[in-house]
Amino acid sequence: MSQSITLQKLAELVGGTISTGSPDSVITGLNSLMEAMPGDVTFLGNVRYLPALKTTKASAALVPENLNAEDAREGLALIRLKNPTLAFSHVIRFFGPPALEFTPGVHATATIAAGVTLDPQKVCVGPHAVIESGAQIGDGSTIHAGAYIGRGVKLGEACVIHANAVIKEYCVLGRRVILHSGSVIGSDGFGYEMVQGRHQKIDQVGIVQIDDDVEIGSCTTIDRARFGRTWIGEGCKIDNLVQIGHNCTLGKHCIIVSQTGISGSTRLGNYVTMGGQVGVAGHLEIGDKVMFLAKSGVTKNILEPGAYTGYPARPLMEGRKMLSLPAKIPDLLDRVRTLEKKIAALEGSATNA
Amino acid sequence: MSQSITLQKLAELVGGTISTGSPDSVITGLNSLMEAMPGDVTFLGNVRYLPALKTTKASAALVPENLNAEDAREGLALIRLKNPTLAFSHVIRFFGPPALEFTPGVHATATIAAGVTLDPQKVCVGPHAVIESGAQIGDGSTIHAGAYIGRGVKLGEACVIHANAVIKEYCVLGRRVILHSGSVIGSDGFGYEMVQGRHQKIDQVGIVQIDDDVEIGSCTTIDRARFGRTWIGEGCKIDNLVQIGHNCTLGKHCIIVSQTGISGSTRLGNYVTMGGQVGVAGHLEIGDKVMFLAKSGVTKNILEPGAYTGYPARPLMEGRKMLSLPAKIPDLLDRVRTLEKKIAALEGSATNA
Amino acid sequence: MSQSITLQKLAELVGGTISTGSPDSVITGLNSLMEAMPGDVTFLGNVRYLPALKTTKASAALVPENLNAEDAREGLALIRLKNPTLAFSHVIRFFGPPALEFTPGVHATATIAAGVTLDPQKVCVGPHAVIESGAQIGDGSTIHAGAYIGRGVKLGEACVIHANAVIKEYCVLGRRVILHSGSVIGSDGFGYEMVQGRHQKIDQVGIVQIDDDVEIGSCTTIDRARFGRTWIGEGCKIDNLVQIGHNCTLGKHCIIVSQTGISGSTRLGNYVTMGGQVGVAGHLEIGDKVMFLAKSGVTKNILEPGAYTGYPARPLMEGRKMLSLPAKIPDLLDRVRTLEKKIAALEGSATNA
Repeated sequence: MSQSITLQKLAELVGGTISTGSPDSVITGLNSLMEAMPGDVTFLGNVRYLPALKTTKASAALVPENLNAEDAREGLALIRLKNPTLAFSHVIRFFGPPALEFTPGVHATATIAAGVTLDPQKVCVGPHAVIESGAQIGDGSTIHAGAYIGRGVKLGEACVIHANAVIKEYCVLGRRVILHSGSVIGSDGFGYEMVQGRHQKIDQVGIVQIDDDVEIGSCTTIDRARFGRTWIGEGCKIDNLVQIGHNCTLGKHCIIVSQTGISGSTRLGNYVTMGGQVGVAGHLEIGDKVMFLAKSGVTKNILEPGAYTGYPARPLMEGRKMLSLPAKIPDLLDRVRTLEKKIAALEGSATNA
Repeated sequence: MSQSITLQKLAELVGGTISTGSPDSVITGLNSLMEAMPGDVTFLGNVRYLPALKTTKASAALVPENLNAEDAREGLALIRLKNPTLAFSHVIRFFGPPALEFTPGVHATATIAAGVTLDPQKVCVGPHAVIESGAQIGDGSTIHAGAYIGRGVKLGEACVIHANAVIKEYCVLGRRVILHSGSVIGSDGFGYEMVQGRHQKIDQVGIVQIDDDVEIGSCTTIDRARFGRTWIGEGCKIDNLVQIGHNCTLGKHCIIVSQTGISGSTRLGNYVTMGGQVGVAGHLEIGDKVMFLAKSGVTKNILEPGAYTGYPARPLMEGRKMLSLPAKIPDLLDRVRTLEKKIAALEGSATNA
Repeated sequence: MSQSITLQKLAELVGGTISTGSPDSVITGLNSLMEAMPGDVTFLGNVRYLPALKTTKASAALVPENLNAEDAREGLALIRLKNPTLAFSHVIRFFGPPALEFTPGVHATATIAAGVTLDPQKVCVGPHAVIESGAQIGDGSTIHAGAYIGRGVKLGEACVIHANAVIKEYCVLGRRVILHSGSVIGSDGFGYEMVQGRHQKIDQVGIVQIDDDVEIGSCTTIDRARFGRTWIGEGCKIDNLVQIGHNCTLGKHCIIVSQTGISGSTRLGNYVTMGGQVGVAGHLEIGDKVMFLAKSGVTKNILEPGAYTGYPARPLMEGRKMLSLPAKIPDLLDRVRTLEKKIAALEGSATNA
């Protein structure tokens, strides 16, 4: 991080306008509002950090176009633009460590079975990676150290399979798919039939199909279908430690946050969003643009777009109300007790009358 | 999937009776009700899919014996039998890809320490697998690529340890145990004592014992005992991303669904079932045939067989009621408000009188 | 476990006082109260096991100083001391299997890139482990089989990286850090911006910094910062299957139990404790000595020390009340119904009058 840039050049880099500060002042690093030091550029990405704009030690900040100048510390240089969070990516790339470049070649300790289709001039395979027979690896893909690519797996172009990730036999991945370390794609679905007091395993002979531009987090598990396919649609982004059961279908561009679990055979539409630790029962239908807040429990089909929360999940306002309603009970009890006393008094006077 | 079979042969294969359709018609594939195409056989495994039996494009379906023929699409061949889901396994095996056969031999890149007991003619060890000294591997077992078998581990016959799974030192596995990729058996239990403001680690010197016919999912973690053993009874089936704490005991034939966590020293009876994302506190006793629905939180001993739900977990009917009761509060508030007005009116008239 | 020890020597070993039993009697093993056999020493670590002290088959037990002698089985030798659980560690170490000793050296199958700083006389690297260029490994550290140490990673002295764990590029670990198998440190944080209907990945170029004496469980994932660092303070202990999002900061000596998830940019003070399956929203501030009970959901800043529970998390007493209040609704309904009848009667008589 030994680079520097003038405020003027920085504004050009991020496509913003300097509203406060000298174009010739020099920026030497970057950090968050709270951790920035003099010389750093920072950014206001979330209105909840507005007070920190008054106290930050940064020398410059990327801010929204409509920021009230009085909300910033005096002397803080401001670059105004539409989306500070997104624009800051350019700053990160400028100051950040060099990206790990793609260097084609198969490491001497990798194990590539006979009958694998890959071009060693166009693919990178790390130490101790294993690619089983019949697998096809698209050009521009990287298989990092210790990753396992099962028999007959197909990988599209420019995929990145991180260290120690596992793809089981016959699964099919599109282009630019990223699998993070420790993720497991295509293990057996969880299916048994009770036979004479013992759980008898049901064969799981389907696959997992993952379409273009999907990213899958660390230690996330996606089970192969009983038959047919478990299917992750184009552009889905799945966080760490997520479980997706056999025969599930995710539409395009879904967001599934960490530790969420989706039971077998459930089907999601496009642009479905699930917060962390959500649980979804099996064999359900979830419509386009449905959003479940963190920790929701989903027990029935939900087709209407919108936000839902709670267990069982309800539309947002209703779900929040359900969470807050029990707090009204102590007051209710008091009022009923008062009513009971008043009634007793009235009954008494009625009798006396 | 280039095979075909006549309806007659198919009925024989699954042990069912043709009630509609020509015995000579030819079936060329299989799929679910919703994804099936002409030529496919499908099945009705769950009554909630009954409407799809009217609209499926499949040519034939395995259906329950008592299905009303009017519930099926006209022209759909029907094979009736007791358990369509189970019977469909035969269809899957017939049409499915060839199972990955067991091929004995130790891969050249595997690392087998001195003092390991295994018969290379009867065991399959994959690339870069590691077996530490003193380990014993039963005949017919497969240790897939990158799996780690710690010092002194004992594996029974016909076990399958999938790619990159880990078994730590001295753990003992029975026969036909399956560990899926990324699972970790025998890491240290989570135990500390606070000593002068710092958490001091308590040695975890016990083992994990896993009995015959247990299957353990991907990225599931089962901690070694502080001393003695963490014990998974015969026939238990454990899904992905499950956590089982040190010194837990699971009886026989328990089912633990994904993302459930069982805290240390808790003891389960036989045939216990836990849905997804259940949490169980430590040092508890759970009786035979207790079933916890998804997302339950278990805070005390539960010995009575039956289903439980909610947090804290209650018997099913009571637990469901607890979840639905808050919805009654708005109506209660209205009624109390009405009562208060009426009382005020009555008090007024009583006073006037 | 073929050692034996007299009760007298045992009392000396654990620093306790014999209150019942012959100092010359011989102890040959150890186990829990319920699994112990004659010849074993056991301990009472939790008052809920008090009844088992009457029925245990053990020959001796470590018990709290103030135990009522009548609570123990007649003939059971008792050694009294302050903390039986902690003291039992000495017993475990005496009878336990030999610890896996540290043996320096780099296994022939390990892959150490050019430009790695490590002293092969003072570091242990297991089979198929991979250490990328620029990494620095502190003396006394062990990198177990199949573990992956990314480019430029710094490890302090006496760290233990268990089999198949992964540390991504540029992360920095202090001294005596333990990473259990399958854990993934420094994968990309989960960050996207919606651009023209697609989730565009935001570069994650920061690191994870882990300070001295931290222990991290199996299959736990800690994401690298977007920029700057995700920071785990000195002495934190993190259980299995935990998720810690990008740019989180954990203070010193926090305890995070299994399956808990902490969303991005949340900051914890010192001595924070989280039970299992807790979920914490992003961008929050949690104060010193705050404790969340299992399954809590944390949606706002909590700065006041103390215990919290429920979703949303509330102070313990209030949170427990919220969980129990719905049970009062059926009685409330009955009482309101009674009131309504009485009012109707009174209104009738008022009208008649």
